Amino acid sequence: MTFIATPQSMTFDAPLPLQSGALIRGYDLTYETYGQLNAERSNAVLICHALNASHHVAGVYEGQARSEGWWDNMVGPGKPVDTNRFFVIGVNNLGSCFGSTGPMHVNPDTGRVYGADFPVVTVEDWVNAQARLLDALGIEQLAAVMGGSLGGMQALSWTLQYPERVRHAVVVASAPNLSAENIAFNEVARRAIVTDPDFHGGHFYQHGVVPARGLRIARMIGHITYLSDDVMNAKFGRELREAVADNGSGYKFSTQDIEFQIESYLRYQGDKFSQYFDANTYLLITRALDYFDPARAFGGDLTQALARTRAKFLLVSFSTDWRFSPARSREIVKALLENRRDVSYAEIDAPHGHDAFLLEDERYMGVVCSYFESFSGETR
Amino acid sequence: MTFIATPQSMTFDAPLPLQSGALIRGYDLTYETYGQLNAERSNAVLICHALNASHHVAGVYEGQARSEGWWDNMVGPGKPVDTNRFFVIGVNNLGSCFGSTGPMHVNPDTGRVYGADFPVVTVEDWVNAQARLLDALGIEQLAAVMGGSLGGMQALSWTLQYPERVRHAVVVASAPNLSAENIAFNEVARRAIVTDPDFHGGHFYQHGVVPARGLRIARMIGHITYLSDDVMNAKFGRELREAVADNGSGYKFSTQDIEFQIESYLRYQGDKFSQYFDANTYLLITRALDYFDPARAFGGDLTQALARTRAKFLLVSFSTDWRFSPARSREIVKALLENRRDVSYAEIDAPHGHDAFLLEDERYMGVVCSYFESFSGETR
Repeated sequence: MTFIATPQSMTFDAPLPLQSGALIRGYDLTYETYGQLNAERSNAVLICHALNASHHVAGVYEGQARSEGWWDNMVGPGKPVDTNRFFVIGVNNLGSCFGSTGPMHVNPDTGRVYGADFPVVTVEDWVNAQARLLDALGIEQLAAVMGGSLGGMQALSWTLQYPERVRHAVVVASAPNLSAENIAFNEVARRAIVTDPDFHGGHFYQHGVVPARGLRIARMIGHITYLSDDVMNAKFGRELREAVADNGSGYKFSTQDIEFQIESYLRYQGDKFSQYFDANTYLLITRALDYFDPARAFGGDLTQALARTRAKFLLVSFSTDWRFSPARSREIVKALLENRRDVSYAEIDAPHGHDAFLLEDERYMGVVCSYFESFSGETR
Repeated sequence: MTFIATPQSMTFDAPLPLQSGALIRGYDLTYETYGQLNAERSNAVLICHALNASHHVAGVYEGQARSEGWWDNMVGPGKPVDTNRFFVIGVNNLGSCFGSTGPMHVNPDTGRVYGADFPVVTVEDWVNAQARLLDALGIEQLAAVMGGSLGGMQALSWTLQYPERVRHAVVVASAPNLSAENIAFNEVARRAIVTDPDFHGGHFYQHGVVPARGLRIARMIGHITYLSDDVMNAKFGRELREAVADNGSGYKFSTQDIEFQIESYLRYQGDKFSQYFDANTYLLITRALDYFDPARAFGGDLTQALARTRAKFLLVSFSTDWRFSPARSREIVKALLENRRDVSYAEIDAPHGHDAFLLEDERYMGVVCSYFESFSGETR
């Protein structure tokens, strides 16, 4: 059963001070809500998005085929995050490219499009902006905040920045910070974008071009890290796209043509992405990932960093996720337990790598469903 | 103790038929030899190189500082592959860019530089070219053929293409073929090169440019896959290159400046590589990796494929190598054992990922040393 989603927008006139010391003067946030806020205003759930997603978490757009939200299998009537019980909010983050103020918008200070001048935003900044949206919606406390990957970092950061405003945090396929390898992959993707001659120092909009070559490479790299070696072998293996007849090997013997199915898949994903995603947003969001590190201010001691939390937690990880491996989730679990917080943890045996957090899986959905049921109807 | 190495070149006038059906009319191979061929001509060891290495396996060049060969820790007087006992040959493969005929040379059919028209060469083609070099050197049978990574594939292929000409094969950090993920990383690197506007369809030489942007990206991706997550965390972690004073986090808050040490390292490696490596060679060699798959002609049955082998084998893998994991080496070991071949296998517990095959490690060196000692002085 599906439902119609309607994006909304809210304008904020008060400047938002950023972690970098910069300020965003005024800004819009695009968001969607599903379900009904109850009279006690106690059933709100905020869903935070990862790199390339948006406020469109669930439902479809009227008259648009294949317009399901990115977590439509998770959020909706009768789904694990049940919109018959909860009032669910999805919000597009600042600096993204799906409606909220970002690099494609006009900088009120200069009258020109921001481009590469859009200020660097962090997970903490996003959480502050989200908190203002909740203020405007009259929601003092969230029943839950939830997210996967970078969205999980936002959920975790909520429990640190606004400990009294979160009763439950659901952190899926996430990490307390990026490893050197994670940063390395982000950096290669950024270099591909920045060194594309069509990037024009981040001011490509006025040249009527986009750095599509760089975006394609960035997305191809991303896709490799979202999947597991196992699932790639199962889905593509060494299968050729079209084997040459009358040739023992079936190979075309070309360095530039598509030979293997995996190449075809990656090129397709890269092409598609380069047509809809903003290059400056890619830089900003990967940097927000790099910078997130709540233990940093505590000399790397995550237990100390998480002492401020007051929420109850559900952590979920996936066995074949090598981008944010189960070990990274366990670091968070351990630090929370050392603070005697109430933590549930599920490590789901799934073949799909990091992508698993977006996919249908009975055990995964079951765990999230049970967790939300456990506090459905709970008041503050 | 080091010694002086002297590169040599040999011209082959007879055309070489390639696996693709194409033909290389005439070609040069650049090679080096260390030690003395004995009277029985029974002590020759061929060392095969991987992606970016060359014939310069060991020793230094007269008057050139820091000119040690790429496997100088493995090959030399008193080293595991002891040149006091063995006559060691290193050869630059066809299509590479360190002396042997490749894309930067003139195509005798057109009188113009080959560029992207250089024919696709495979591991099997390289082995055929190497066999002709041995013919010319009067070596009918090798005491051993040895290589790491792509070099290991050549060593394995020697035992299949010329089973009677190899007594021992040492296959280090290798695989019976590339996985979908391996191919995926190669493909992203190739796309970065091919879509660089300075690539000019592979004929950049006449434009006086090189596709340096693409080569940088390719090398950065490569480097990530050569290292383990653990060693990256140990070497670089989340360390900043230069922390900003008077700022809680130390961050510069920039999407394009170097912030983390790992970024600095990768950019440096990319820059260095783009200054010496040929882009067309990069495409050719990664394609040779993609295509290697001796089991392919046997419906994927590696045991059947390896039935032709007659050599004795040493296989070595490294615990943290996720590019060519120990599991891939064990596939080869299993297939050889099922053919009742004489196989030794060492899985070295090393933190350095795929790079470990090039690095000093007492146990690794010890295993190779013992293996070579076991047949030193052996005649055919």
